[in-house]
Amino acid sequence: MNILDGKKLRDEIFLKLKDKVKDLKLSLAVIQVGDDEASNVYINQKKKMCENLNIQFKHYRLQESILDDEVIHLIEKLNKDDTTAILMQLPIPNHLNKQKIIDSIDYRKDVDGLTSINAGNLLLGKKGLIPCTPKGIITLLKYNNIDLKGKRVTIIGRSNLVGKPLALLMLRENATVSICHSKTKNIKDITLNSDIIISATGKNGLVKEDMIKDNAVVVDVGISKIDGKLFGDVDFDQVSRKCSYITPVPGGVGPMTIASLAENIYEAYLIQKK
Amino acid sequence: MNILDGKKLRDEIFLKLKDKVKDLKLSLAVIQVGDDEASNVYINQKKKMCENLNIQFKHYRLQESILDDEVIHLIEKLNKDDTTAILMQLPIPNHLNKQKIIDSIDYRKDVDGLTSINAGNLLLGKKGLIPCTPKGIITLLKYNNIDLKGKRVTIIGRSNLVGKPLALLMLRENATVSICHSKTKNIKDITLNSDIIISATGKNGLVKEDMIKDNAVVVDVGISKIDGKLFGDVDFDQVSRKCSYITPVPGGVGPMTIASLAENIYEAYLIQKK
Repeated sequence: MNILDGKKLRDEIFLKLKDKVKDLKLSLAVIQVGDDEASNVYINQKKKMCENLNIQFKHYRLQESILDDEVIHLIEKLNKDDTTAILMQLPIPNHLNKQKIIDSIDYRKDVDGLTSINAGNLLLGKKGLIPCTPKGIITLLKYNNIDLKGKRVTIIGRSNLVGKPLALLMLRENATVSICHSKTKNIKDITLNSDIIISATGKNGLVKEDMIKDNAVVVDVGISKIDGKLFGDVDFDQVSRKCSYITPVPGGVGPMTIASLAENIYEAYLIQKK
Repeated sequence: MNILDGKKLRDEIFLKLKDKVKDLKLSLAVIQVGDDEASNVYINQKKKMCENLNIQFKHYRLQESILDDEVIHLIEKLNKDDTTAILMQLPIPNHLNKQKIIDSIDYRKDVDGLTSINAGNLLLGKKGLIPCTPKGIITLLKYNNIDLKGKRVTIIGRSNLVGKPLALLMLRENATVSICHSKTKNIKDITLNSDIIISATGKNGLVKEDMIKDNAVVVDVGISKIDGKLFGDVDFDQVSRKCSYITPVPGGVGPMTIASLAENIYEAYLIQKK
């Protein structure tokens, strides 16, 4: 069994990018509404990445009670100024119109790939900014020479941030893709026939040894915190004995998400320069 | 075995729509470049539908050698005037930038659902105009009380017009979705475990009796012409003995595509009225 080491690859990506971006005066604006604890952790990771790569980090912390128009007003300001990349930290409070706010981001600065235009470009096979987690997974698999063409790939989870965009990226790579979710019956029948299984549900212990075939590749996107310790969707101790490759949690997909964000900031710069 | 009768349902849909649209002065502009024979047949079907529903039909036939800017200039004119719906008849010659031309269509008039914005809305689960063929397939299955929730659905083909948007619509309906294509190995292993199989390849005879389980639902989107006769992807004589429901070719998905186009024109009107 081999570990798919996201940290190591992230550091390599940072090293290459550092040189490329050093004189470019790039900047990332992160907009946060409220004070979600998990968001604070994620934002801190982004801040560290920016410091590491000499990208200016701007953190806009808005009060919980803010209205759509005020958030959009800020975004429009950032669209016009020299900010390279804009990111709306999710989740945001329910009273806000999430998609309307996200769609107010200039798609050339949308480093989360969540505006309608970037999502559409992904569906239609056009160039554009791609959500960081699916992008990072593809990068990690390719770096480890895991061939995707013709492979059976099963994705558990159908979110806008992971499951659906990842399915489209896997199709681009000529994989045969199955998408399972909470309404799927007998999920084991599908995963047992899969070369690559990617779980993105946040349900600790969902993927067990008896669900995967020998030498499968297992990618764990899930994250849950139990008694202060982080767990993924995959029962690592059991599954790691059976599979050929596996991502650890933490240290697998998480660092790759940050690495892809850094790549997207640089790509946003290139797109805007055109 | 039951026939999924697209003609009958199309006529019902037309009947309901006829009354709704009769005083609305709707119009459909179809832009054709060159003189593709199959396109002429499809355009004629659209023309008939418009005549039937009292929708003004405008056919712009442009010469093969036309340039991007000239096509886009026409589209911009139609975006601004009172045309309800604009449709770029595909295929178009290779020297033209297909996606640039399509993206110049106002997304509120894009009744093929092929602009980046509408494709993105579909991916993100937002409202928008949906490609006619996948929309028609969902309508036909639902009309026949075929439950999709938790069902194993296999789609053969990954085009922008059918395979990918249909996969997303099936996910919305809580189906478990697998997408196969030309690079898929042992496609039979997947189809044999599927409750619903939808083939959209244009390869006559691809889906055979030994590829489906008893009482599967089979939807045939393929179309190929051999010695002047139309065939689908499915070996109808064999497969129809084994399945519970099947679409005929012609008379299945084809009429539903036209019915969905009519619905999309009405929907485009409603979106623009907002």
